[in-house]
Amino acid sequence: MDQKRLRELLLSFKEERLDLDQALAQLRHLPFEDLGYAHVDHHRAIRQGFPEVIFGQGKTPDQIEGIASRLLERSSNLLITRTNPESFERIRRLVPEAVYHESCRAISVQRDLTIHGRGTVAVVTAGTSDIPVADEAALTVEIMGNRLERLFDVGVAGIHRILSRRELLQSARVIVCVAGMEGALPSVVGGLVSVPVIAVPTSIGYGASFGGVAALLGMLNSCSSNVTVVNIDNGFGAGFVASLINRD
Amino acid sequence: MDQKRLRELLLSFKEERLDLDQALAQLRHLPFEDLGYAHVDHHRAIRQGFPEVIFGQGKTPDQIEGIASRLLERSSNLLITRTNPESFERIRRLVPEAVYHESCRAISVQRDLTIHGRGTVAVVTAGTSDIPVADEAALTVEIMGNRLERLFDVGVAGIHRILSRRELLQSARVIVCVAGMEGALPSVVGGLVSVPVIAVPTSIGYGASFGGVAALLGMLNSCSSNVTVVNIDNGFGAGFVASLINRD
Amino acid sequence: MDQKRLRELLLSFKEERLDLDQALAQLRHLPFEDLGYAHVDHHRAIRQGFPEVIFGQGKTPDQIEGIASRLLERSSNLLITRTNPESFERIRRLVPEAVYHESCRAISVQRDLTIHGRGTVAVVTAGTSDIPVADEAALTVEIMGNRLERLFDVGVAGIHRILSRRELLQSARVIVCVAGMEGALPSVVGGLVSVPVIAVPTSIGYGASFGGVAALLGMLNSCSSNVTVVNIDNGFGAGFVASLINRD
Amino acid sequence: MDQKRLRELLLSFKEERLDLDQALAQLRHLPFEDLGYAHVDHHRAIRQGFPEVIFGQGKTPDQIEGIASRLLERSSNLLITRTNPESFERIRRLVPEAVYHESCRAISVQRDLTIHGRGTVAVVTAGTSDIPVADEAALTVEIMGNRLERLFDVGVAGIHRILSRRELLQSARVIVCVAGMEGALPSVVGGLVSVPVIAVPTSIGYGASFGGVAALLGMLNSCSSNVTVVNIDNGFGAGFVASLINRD
Amino acid sequence: MDQKRLRELLLSFKEERLDLDQALAQLRHLPFEDLGYAHVDHHRAIRQGFPEVIFGQGKTPDQIEGIASRLLERSSNLLITRTNPESFERIRRLVPEAVYHESCRAISVQRDLTIHGRGTVAVVTAGTSDIPVADEAALTVEIMGNRLERLFDVGVAGIHRILSRRELLQSARVIVCVAGMEGALPSVVGGLVSVPVIAVPTSIGYGASFGGVAALLGMLNSCSSNVTVVNIDNGFGAGFVASLINRD
Amino acid sequence: MDQKRLRELLLSFKEERLDLDQALAQLRHLPFEDLGYAHVDHHRAIRQGFPEVIFGQGKTPDQIEGIASRLLERSSNLLITRTNPESFERIRRLVPEAVYHESCRAISVQRDLTIHGRGTVAVVTAGTSDIPVADEAALTVEIMGNRLERLFDVGVAGIHRILSRRELLQSARVIVCVAGMEGALPSVVGGLVSVPVIAVPTSIGYGASFGGVAALLGMLNSCSSNVTVVNIDNGFGAGFVASLINRD
Amino acid sequence: MDQKRLRELLLSFKEERLDLDQALAQLRHLPFEDLGYAHVDHHRAIRQGFPEVIFGQGKTPDQIEGIASRLLERSSNLLITRTNPESFERIRRLVPEAVYHESCRAISVQRDLTIHGRGTVAVVTAGTSDIPVADEAALTVEIMGNRLERLFDVGVAGIHRILSRRELLQSARVIVCVAGMEGALPSVVGGLVSVPVIAVPTSIGYGASFGGVAALLGMLNSCSSNVTVVNIDNGFGAGFVASLINRD
Amino acid sequence: MDQKRLRELLLSFKEERLDLDQALAQLRHLPFEDLGYAHVDHHRAIRQGFPEVIFGQGKTPDQIEGIASRLLERSSNLLITRTNPESFERIRRLVPEAVYHESCRAISVQRDLTIHGRGTVAVVTAGTSDIPVADEAALTVEIMGNRLERLFDVGVAGIHRILSRRELLQSARVIVCVAGMEGALPSVVGGLVSVPVIAVPTSIGYGASFGGVAALLGMLNSCSSNVTVVNIDNGFGAGFVASLINRD
Repeated sequence: MDQKRLRELLLSFKEERLDLDQALAQLRHLPFEDLGYAHVDHHRAIRQGFPEVIFGQGKTPDQIEGIASRLLERSSNLLITRTNPESFERIRRLVPEAVYHESCRAISVQRDLTIHGRGTVAVVTAGTSDIPVADEAALTVEIMGNRLERLFDVGVAGIHRILSRRELLQSARVIVCVAGMEGALPSVVGGLVSVPVIAVPTSIGYGASFGGVAALLGMLNSCSSNVTVVNIDNGFGAGFVASLINRD
Repeated sequence: MDQKRLRELLLSFKEERLDLDQALAQLRHLPFEDLGYAHVDHHRAIRQGFPEVIFGQGKTPDQIEGIASRLLERSSNLLITRTNPESFERIRRLVPEAVYHESCRAISVQRDLTIHGRGTVAVVTAGTSDIPVADEAALTVEIMGNRLERLFDVGVAGIHRILSRRELLQSARVIVCVAGMEGALPSVVGGLVSVPVIAVPTSIGYGASFGGVAALLGMLNSCSSNVTVVNIDNGFGAGFVASLINRD
Repeated sequence: MDQKRLRELLLSFKEERLDLDQALAQLRHLPFEDLGYAHVDHHRAIRQGFPEVIFGQGKTPDQIEGIASRLLERSSNLLITRTNPESFERIRRLVPEAVYHESCRAISVQRDLTIHGRGTVAVVTAGTSDIPVADEAALTVEIMGNRLERLFDVGVAGIHRILSRRELLQSARVIVCVAGMEGALPSVVGGLVSVPVIAVPTSIGYGASFGGVAALLGMLNSCSSNVTVVNIDNGFGAGFVASLINRD
Repeated sequence: MDQKRLRELLLSFKEERLDLDQALAQLRHLPFEDLGYAHVDHHRAIRQGFPEVIFGQGKTPDQIEGIASRLLERSSNLLITRTNPESFERIRRLVPEAVYHESCRAISVQRDLTIHGRGTVAVVTAGTSDIPVADEAALTVEIMGNRLERLFDVGVAGIHRILSRRELLQSARVIVCVAGMEGALPSVVGGLVSVPVIAVPTSIGYGASFGGVAALLGMLNSCSSNVTVVNIDNGFGAGFVASLINRD
Repeated sequence: MDQKRLRELLLSFKEERLDLDQALAQLRHLPFEDLGYAHVDHHRAIRQGFPEVIFGQGKTPDQIEGIASRLLERSSNLLITRTNPESFERIRRLVPEAVYHESCRAISVQRDLTIHGRGTVAVVTAGTSDIPVADEAALTVEIMGNRLERLFDVGVAGIHRILSRRELLQSARVIVCVAGMEGALPSVVGGLVSVPVIAVPTSIGYGASFGGVAALLGMLNSCSSNVTVVNIDNGFGAGFVASLINRD
Repeated sequence: MDQKRLRELLLSFKEERLDLDQALAQLRHLPFEDLGYAHVDHHRAIRQGFPEVIFGQGKTPDQIEGIASRLLERSSNLLITRTNPESFERIRRLVPEAVYHESCRAISVQRDLTIHGRGTVAVVTAGTSDIPVADEAALTVEIMGNRLERLFDVGVAGIHRILSRRELLQSARVIVCVAGMEGALPSVVGGLVSVPVIAVPTSIGYGASFGGVAALLGMLNSCSSNVTVVNIDNGFGAGFVASLINRD
Repeated sequence: MDQKRLRELLLSFKEERLDLDQALAQLRHLPFEDLGYAHVDHHRAIRQGFPEVIFGQGKTPDQIEGIASRLLERSSNLLITRTNPESFERIRRLVPEAVYHESCRAISVQRDLTIHGRGTVAVVTAGTSDIPVADEAALTVEIMGNRLERLFDVGVAGIHRILSRRELLQSARVIVCVAGMEGALPSVVGGLVSVPVIAVPTSIGYGASFGGVAALLGMLNSCSSNVTVVNIDNGFGAGFVASLINRD
Repeated sequence: MDQKRLRELLLSFKEERLDLDQALAQLRHLPFEDLGYAHVDHHRAIRQGFPEVIFGQGKTPDQIEGIASRLLERSSNLLITRTNPESFERIRRLVPEAVYHESCRAISVQRDLTIHGRGTVAVVTAGTSDIPVADEAALTVEIMGNRLERLFDVGVAGIHRILSRRELLQSARVIVCVAGMEGALPSVVGGLVSVPVIAVPTSIGYGASFGGVAALLGMLNSCSSNVTVVNIDNGFGAGFVASLINRD
């Protein structure tokens, strides 16, 4: 409950438009609705300054449609991650401008194209197999109103590839760096720039990659001090934080 | 090698102040010195825009003194982490204004007090035992020229403690959130603000905390999308990235 | 073998209604039957004061039907967890009042609706994806004769959601708290109440959630002292213990 | 902030004993004090209905003394866990009736001996090496006003030992069951009783016990449904929850 | 190469029925044949005193048939573990007396029914879900010529079940004890008898059972000194060693 | 309670030497004594057919002396493992014939030298660093009345070493095989003999040996079917089971 | 960029065939092309002296065909690992001499059959189930121009099998040793030869093999000093390094 | 037993200088001696073509002296790893030319300085803290008769450092690459050269480096195909294999 409404509440009570019990009850009441299976939290959009996002994994098309239709009443832009074509059919019927992104299995509705970010966000991958995760990050960065640069397949085994694009990297305000296997790319990128690098380990690899654990540990132990890490395959989270950094 | 020196090199060669072999040799030569045990990299300071930092763990007082004396010739501010009083004695003889920070076992030399950061960096801890790691983060934030707010011992088991300081949190440009045990604080803090939260798991706890692994995993799986994570007990890294975010 | 039957046995022997070998044999004989694949243990119902429960996982419909038909001869209420529609068809033919609970894949037969619990058991979840596990807990709580309150999707990233329902939580005798990902909810709930909180980690999440391990470790390391933990996805166990606590 | 004070606040504002800004400020103000290194939370004692507890690990004697002296002004009973004789010297100077418990390295001040619990709490161990953890649990149970039964060294390799004390177990309202190595005791005890069993894995063992992990996993996978688990060596937590269960 | 053939070789050389190179070559030659994909080792049968066993997992029906037809020329009894009905069809065409054991997916050919074992081998399980692994152990015990006792579903949560069959256990020469979940059964059984107990963890369970790791660790840490352990789900290995112990 | 005493009890009751309550009480009474810190279980010696063993780790010299003095009243032979010279001083005062074994930190009292085992037990190690664990196994084997053969430092990197001692191995009734690092020795030994091999992983090694886990996993996955495994460094357990196998 | 082109560039600039900006631009330009989804790196072939390899896992047939057609313009030999028949159909249309290797799911194009290696590379497996991984190694060894010896199914449980082929092993310049389960073969092989042994753990096994982790740890802890290790199932990597060792 | 002695043996038997039993006995006899605690294996030196090495960890000065004095009778060069000054005192008395290497705690005796290697072995480290492990590798490389190049502190966060020394790397026959933390250096180095790279993870780091596990996993998952891996901190093993590769 924001300050303004709180003032009004106190004054309403003082001016006897509310009695004591009503005032107490309103103090306890916070503005969200109950759809049965999920509290839709309109506050969050305001609090965090961005469109609502639905984490699609483990939600049925019915649930996704229900939450989405509520959110779209108030929000121009919507992102649904880890979903599927079936849910997309539902959403497209609600909003024809919805787009399905096959590589990262996401749905986006971007009705407001304002640029909020001050600089550029670069999304970089080590290999071609990391692209689905990078696409989720890139999509997040775009829907949150940022200029985006993609730089894919510049892994450290061919170091000249990343070095030849140093200029692009050095012009970014923040870099999202996506890598599986040994996850070494963020350390190299981090050493080349003086901006934050958000490292995303991917589950790409086999054997002792342990579904992304090798890359995750590599990134957490990066010798470059400007590297922070998000969960394995969490392209959305990386794009989200990159947007927060770029916005202010 | 920067663009300017590269131009000069090419022109020197063209104007025959350098012969071909000299030109090739200089192209291969990058400006760092060799102390025998460590390449001191003056480039890095320029590249990353901040004073040099010595990671003290595993280095002898001799090594630390050697590296520090070189760095202090060119850099106003110096931070030495994970060190000890013995090394401090050496550094104090070099620079009397050096300060030893007992809780986080760090040495700082801060001869330049310019504020570079645009907003405030908040450093928050869940418990009193997390304070040494938070102090390392706070020291880093200060030596890198930022306004700092400390908010200690506001763990989630007494949720009103963190809620009562919501205003302080919401006025920060970036938050460093330090927690051991279950590492739940960054999720709660992340939900209250719309700025990046850098989570630092600490090795505080016992049994199934596994030296900070429980907190690390909790933070990587945070349901708040604005949370990124650094290594266990890496207060320095969190403070460093927070400063990068705050600077621009 | 209870005290009363033991007395009778001794007296029967003394009064020569039993000879020595018969007495020895009866002392060794404990009342359970052998269905070939499973000892049905009628003692347990008496010993633990509750209807029998069949753990359905890894049992064929034939096995489930066989065990269930025996148990239903003596017990009014029956719960079969982790089962499937095929087994339900078998059970429905045995008892028409059997109900299949799709979200948690359980079958219940509740012919006795007596309330045994003194207070209310609250079942709380962090997200919508945790609901199947919570439903298993809730179903267990109900079939064991307790008043139940459900409070779903009140995760810590939107802390006002849980705070706004504080009253409901504080009126419960015991709380079952179901959460995946970082598993932070029990710590927050535990700090708001002075009753036991039974935490159930769920396998919801991806990457470094490691199938519920992150949530499990978070809960084991909870900074709230009133939290105990059951196995990942063990909604039944949590509901069972909650009922034991509420009963006395 | 409780309901009564909230009412008073609203009325004070209405009756103009408070102006608008004062009212808003008070609404934001929650009653805890700031000692610099730790928020002492007087609310918690009321909220959870028990004396305050200091987790001594990682706290200096100075910090412990500081926190304790504040708490003892308002609370009759105090428990300090995981501490040492040096801290005890400090506390004894504050309160001569303080007692040091060597086996579990705890300090207790129990000035109020009221029995709050309705039944008996049994604390059971598998081996003699588990006794320090069991002592921490037992001490917690006693200081929280419960009748206590100790049953030590009744591990499952000599099953008649636990069976011969079945009566004691079956008369308890709740059982704390402490075991290292394979952690099998709670399953056996759980099968003998119809009350909640709180299992405490201990770090006792070697090799593949992995500091208590084997016992922890064993307990989480217990085939007895009335078992819940706390962290490795967390005797305090187990005693605390047992007291909550016994109190109502 | 056995002693007898070695003597003959030396004598043949001395008596010039072999020249030096032939003698050297024969010394290097060991009697096994090469089917291309597998060395069939007739020595092993003699060396270990038992029929040959084919580990079916990862072998095609063609490979299994090929190896089996060779082995059956010399061996009366054959056991093929972890195989499938398709391979069974192949084997049945080779030997009509082959039997397929569905629960443990094994094929047996037992043309020699001699009893080699001196005592009885008991195979015990904690739950009904452990039966497939126990069946593999029992089948192995029988095909190796031992008297067998089965005792299934006597888990520790109903301790009277195992106690009531104590006599059966105490009359065995060696016990195979199969259990999933917390794997506590071998400790209890081990405490009741004075013969070796071979513990087989099963992958039965969910969540923190980690596919049998919880049971495995429990068994390795057993407080009963007469317990040794084999790999998760390795019923065959347990039955094999039990037969070796029982034979002599 | 054995059959004979049970008969007597029943008859005493019938013949009115015991009244009903006395009979019931005696039925519940099992013969062990309570030293306060440990139930000394005289039954176990009879049940398992061997002298008592004290696991010294985590026990004070006082506790060890107390338990030992009781046990020595009835048992000729005593083994105390994982203890220290201080405890030995106490025991030597009780029994002058006590011996301290420095390499494995064990105390033995062997007043009865009868050979109970039928064959020979071989104790084999891969390296010299594994000897302390092997010595614990060998000591156990001897105190339990077996003929013993030691074969040390025959690791698989020099395969001719183990092959040259094949005859010794093949003449044993059971083999204890002790190895750290990759733990490969039991597989090779197991392939050379047709008797049970008890594998003991040791914590010898560094880095990815993880304190014996590499050896433990290697042994659990042995391709030789006659291998079973005990806990890391558990020389006693291996010697104990070897004695059980050899005895009958 | 190689030395020769660098000289030419400098001279071109000096001789004014390039202006300053052109020279700077060329210095920054490195020769690789951009197919959109993957940088094809012609440098690497020269740098590493071998044909290009495509890691097929996670790449679509379209991607594989696109990359392959580019590479085949310049390279005689091509290896595509971890692919499938569908991709093979595409490649066969490009180059009719392409071969599909079913056991290891690889495609090879070997138009240049020159032998580059000086000695022989031996590829050895412990079991028949390890053959697919060994085939990938063998195929790599052959396509890189080496003489190859295969030695399959010589696991350590029948040690005479490997010993009887000692001569073959001792004549190799380098040995690739493929094993699952306990991974003991490289230690035995390593002890028999004085050349490098490259150990490849396979994911063959079950239970505590943990998908190859047991074998991996065994190999990393090998007591033979001439053993190095590659990732689980990484036959290609082992064959590649073996070829590098054999080539010079 | 080598071919020559085998021929002689056969001929001696034929010529009746040996009778049958003597011949058989000699066939079984292999040439090594028994010092009680360790088989000294003179064969190995011949078999592997290098001086003997003593792994000092876990061996007493007495044991080390005993083994060393035997070995020095026949071998010019000796390396003792993971030892201490006390053992050095013993060795220096045996051979005055012994040298103690403090950083890696090794003793070397190098009386034969012949160069056996054809090219140069480069030993590279990421940081200054990795130097002790690199020194062990370098010492091994030198004592085995190779030309050595050291290149220390060239971690990937300052990528120009490693690039500026590319020429040195590209002139090596084999590279040992030592790195802790994220272990990314071998991937970068591997991409720059076309020779084998032997990666040595070090236990340098903290938190989620898990004592070198992060670096180990990173190296096993290297995207450079010419990388193989040895155990954490195993500088000796890496130097040993590098020497084998360089020798031929």
